[in-house]
Amino acid sequence: MPWSFRPHSMSLAVAGLVALAALPVLAGPPSDATRQAARASLQEWIDVLALPNDANVPADIQKNVAWFAKAFERRGFAVSQLANGDKPMLLATQTPAAGNRKTVLFYAHLDGQAVKPEEWQQSSPWKATLKQRTADGRWAELPIERLQGEKIDPEWRVFARSSSDDKAPIVMLLAALDALKAEGREAGVDIKVLLDSEEEKGSPTLGRVIGENLQALQADAMVVLDGPMHASNRPTLVFGNRGVAQATLTVYGASQELHSGHYGNYAANPAQSLARLLASMKDDEGRVLVKGYYDGIELDSQARAVMQAVPDDEAALRRRLGIAQAESVGGSYQESMQYPSLNVRGLQSAEVGPKARTVIPATAVAEIDMRTVPETPPERLEKLLRAHIEAQGFHLTEGAPSADERARHPRLATLKMGGVSASGSAVRTPLDAPVGQWLRRGMDRAWGSAPVQIRMMGGTVPTGAAVQALGIPFVIVPLVNADNNQHSFNENMRLGNYFDGVHSLVNMLAEPF
Amino acid sequence: MPWSFRPHSMSLAVAGLVALAALPVLAGPPSDATRQAARASLQEWIDVLALPNDANVPADIQKNVAWFAKAFERRGFAVSQLANGDKPMLLATQTPAAGNRKTVLFYAHLDGQAVKPEEWQQSSPWKATLKQRTADGRWAELPIERLQGEKIDPEWRVFARSSSDDKAPIVMLLAALDALKAEGREAGVDIKVLLDSEEEKGSPTLGRVIGENLQALQADAMVVLDGPMHASNRPTLVFGNRGVAQATLTVYGASQELHSGHYGNYAANPAQSLARLLASMKDDEGRVLVKGYYDGIELDSQARAVMQAVPDDEAALRRRLGIAQAESVGGSYQESMQYPSLNVRGLQSAEVGPKARTVIPATAVAEIDMRTVPETPPERLEKLLRAHIEAQGFHLTEGAPSADERARHPRLATLKMGGVSASGSAVRTPLDAPVGQWLRRGMDRAWGSAPVQIRMMGGTVPTGAAVQALGIPFVIVPLVNADNNQHSFNENMRLGNYFDGVHSLVNMLAEPF
Repeated sequence: MPWSFRPHSMSLAVAGLVALAALPVLAGPPSDATRQAARASLQEWIDVLALPNDANVPADIQKNVAWFAKAFERRGFAVSQLANGDKPMLLATQTPAAGNRKTVLFYAHLDGQAVKPEEWQQSSPWKATLKQRTADGRWAELPIERLQGEKIDPEWRVFARSSSDDKAPIVMLLAALDALKAEGREAGVDIKVLLDSEEEKGSPTLGRVIGENLQALQADAMVVLDGPMHASNRPTLVFGNRGVAQATLTVYGASQELHSGHYGNYAANPAQSLARLLASMKDDEGRVLVKGYYDGIELDSQARAVMQAVPDDEAALRRRLGIAQAESVGGSYQESMQYPSLNVRGLQSAEVGPKARTVIPATAVAEIDMRTVPETPPERLEKLLRAHIEAQGFHLTEGAPSADERARHPRLATLKMGGVSASGSAVRTPLDAPVGQWLRRGMDRAWGSAPVQIRMMGGTVPTGAAVQALGIPFVIVPLVNADNNQHSFNENMRLGNYFDGVHSLVNMLAEPF
Repeated sequence: MPWSFRPHSMSLAVAGLVALAALPVLAGPPSDATRQAARASLQEWIDVLALPNDANVPADIQKNVAWFAKAFERRGFAVSQLANGDKPMLLATQTPAAGNRKTVLFYAHLDGQAVKPEEWQQSSPWKATLKQRTADGRWAELPIERLQGEKIDPEWRVFARSSSDDKAPIVMLLAALDALKAEGREAGVDIKVLLDSEEEKGSPTLGRVIGENLQALQADAMVVLDGPMHASNRPTLVFGNRGVAQATLTVYGASQELHSGHYGNYAANPAQSLARLLASMKDDEGRVLVKGYYDGIELDSQARAVMQAVPDDEAALRRRLGIAQAESVGGSYQESMQYPSLNVRGLQSAEVGPKARTVIPATAVAEIDMRTVPETPPERLEKLLRAHIEAQGFHLTEGAPSADERARHPRLATLKMGGVSASGSAVRTPLDAPVGQWLRRGMDRAWGSAPVQIRMMGGTVPTGAAVQALGIPFVIVPLVNADNNQHSFNENMRLGNYFDGVHSLVNMLAEPF
């Protein structure tokens, strides 16, 4: 996630709006039981971090499944492995279910990104390593036994693959269950947990696996425990994510590369034609000019208040990105993410650099990705894009144009859509959906203030497939520090976030839906 | 050269205009002496084709220089090797000079393109191979001795590296000298011959070598014996060629590639910005919109008549290129070549195809070439292009922008000009210059009709350096068939063109300047 902002205080008026009329609750610090359960869970976390979990190695995935199965069984859950080739997913169901409560399905994933151990500043990415930041900004190792000591500094971090993405949230959930049990409290909801085994590969099978286990997975809402919190490190709820659709646009010139001397000024240049075509699609400020592209998107005052309350520091963001100003699709970063994008992700025609030759290229290609929102499904955007290209005088062919098509049409192009899978779908839960209200109440109880609420994150997460298959609302509840280096080397989890997350989860789970 | 047209007849009215009031002359067929000299020269041609002449192998170049030195010495020329590292050029000067006549410097080159022998359909590219086209369009070998026989079919061809480019024209010139001598006729001009040794490498040293030998090379005009004739295969004179200047245009986005989900709609995309910038440079019909780009170019009625008389078959050309219509820079192919071009010869931003990722690229690059005409030197076009880019709101930096430049300017780009050497200069001789009149008279005498006259060819030839250094007018007199496969494998020379060319040269040389 992109945020790198500093927290700022929110006006009470906006906070009221944003809290969406939640009942006042009395927030309290973590209970002793929560503290103890969280501390006790650290050893389990370290143990499971020792298990490699690259989804390319089925045997490793199976070991992780077995480990988590036991951990949930110990807490009285019924577990089953959901068939998925040689990389089963894990379903854990709280028993006995109370029956008269709502059921929440927690989604997380036990697989992790591949590693290159030589990049890591520790003996192994599979050996949890405790580190403390030194005065000069480096990370210095501490004995891992310090986690058993009296004082744990919230600024310490545990470094390991999947320390944050995504094993910590699962173990934090285990700790929260332990805390509730230690206090003799009932959860406010029935709990199911689904652990994906191929999330880092884009969850290619998630929709199918869910479809095959609809009954077992039935729930009233899904809570996704994944991803980083807002960069302000304040408790965060994410209500939606954009989808993604891809297209390849090819513009054709002459039937082969031409000598730019003999034909320059005579045969049209496809790179130039493509440039003109792309230029026609967006205005100077980044707004898409394709007719109807933004149709159906409306941001009411509630949505605007929620977006405005997000403590983004856009000046710092622009500084970090190295840009003097943002595009004008939305009036703010948050608003910009509410609209579909039209992005040239790659461009090529003939060669640049030392391999460039003085030719008129024969073709020019733009790779495009469109981040979709629920109002703008890929099929509609494709139709609009086609109509736009044709309105610019291009004749669209299926593949490379034939001699006959070349003779008849001065402008020729193809538009080929990439396969759009459900895991690339845009999904959004209404801000006032019951699951959102429930989560806000839990967060309010834990922290005494409204969480950062993201109406729509810009990126795409593969849970769209789950949401569509189950037909239930979802909210992402990220619990890990934004600067956790996920997907990269030196992935880490801040211990303060670990303890805060357990506190959030305890209050969530205790709250009646 | 590009032409692939069929001949068509020219109206007498246009022919008159085009002949530029040449005196009526009596055309005649080749004399017996011409025929005999041409036939006798075939063996010399075959001999010299056996000498490899890749300019990357100095020893081979030296052998060719020695061979041509002897050939000219035998004809009473004084020869000298002009110092040029280990690849000397050859100067041959007719002696004694008449003194009261104009001097014409013939330029040709003795080096050839590198070969890949395995691509050639003959035992060696260095073994002249006689071939005849079969009924089904293939080329069948004939015994090379057939060239000594009674009947030589003008459609036969000799295949070898440099058979056409550019040894044939030199040997044809030798044959024309022999023919004149056999007839006891005086040449109408004093003759100098300069043989370049690095033309296929772009004549990087030609300007310097000429500068060091100005006195010895002094002449009233230069005639370039190189390049293919008009595709109609009619006698051809070329009065000018466009130059070439190169530029690399880079547009900058954020300081690194960004996730297209998290930042799409927020951080401007440099590929999109580049597209908009390129689109602003040309209109839909290919005309350059950069202010002042075409300033100073005027085509008078004489120029228009000459262009119109060129027997181009543009419908066939468009068919061959696979384009439905031409750009509108000029009303015809010939007119289009009278203007500078602005050509995107390469385009790249991030990646396309399987390597494409969902990113907002950090940079986008367009490689540009501008074919210049004498009215539009590269320095002026660069200035206009810079002004245009700045007028579109871009701040031009010297290299990659600094953090400070990034903070201050929303649109950033660099424009880096490629080194423009004199060998890439545009040059043009006035159509009514004395050398042109002289050549037309010779052609008229040989053929009884005006030659095809190209005011300006679209491509660039490296003789610009020679023309600039010597400060004399030049005309290109191509003598070889347009379909000679020059620079490629199976290079060949049509024997009809060989004999016709000798006839043209005899009549040129005999004509008083």
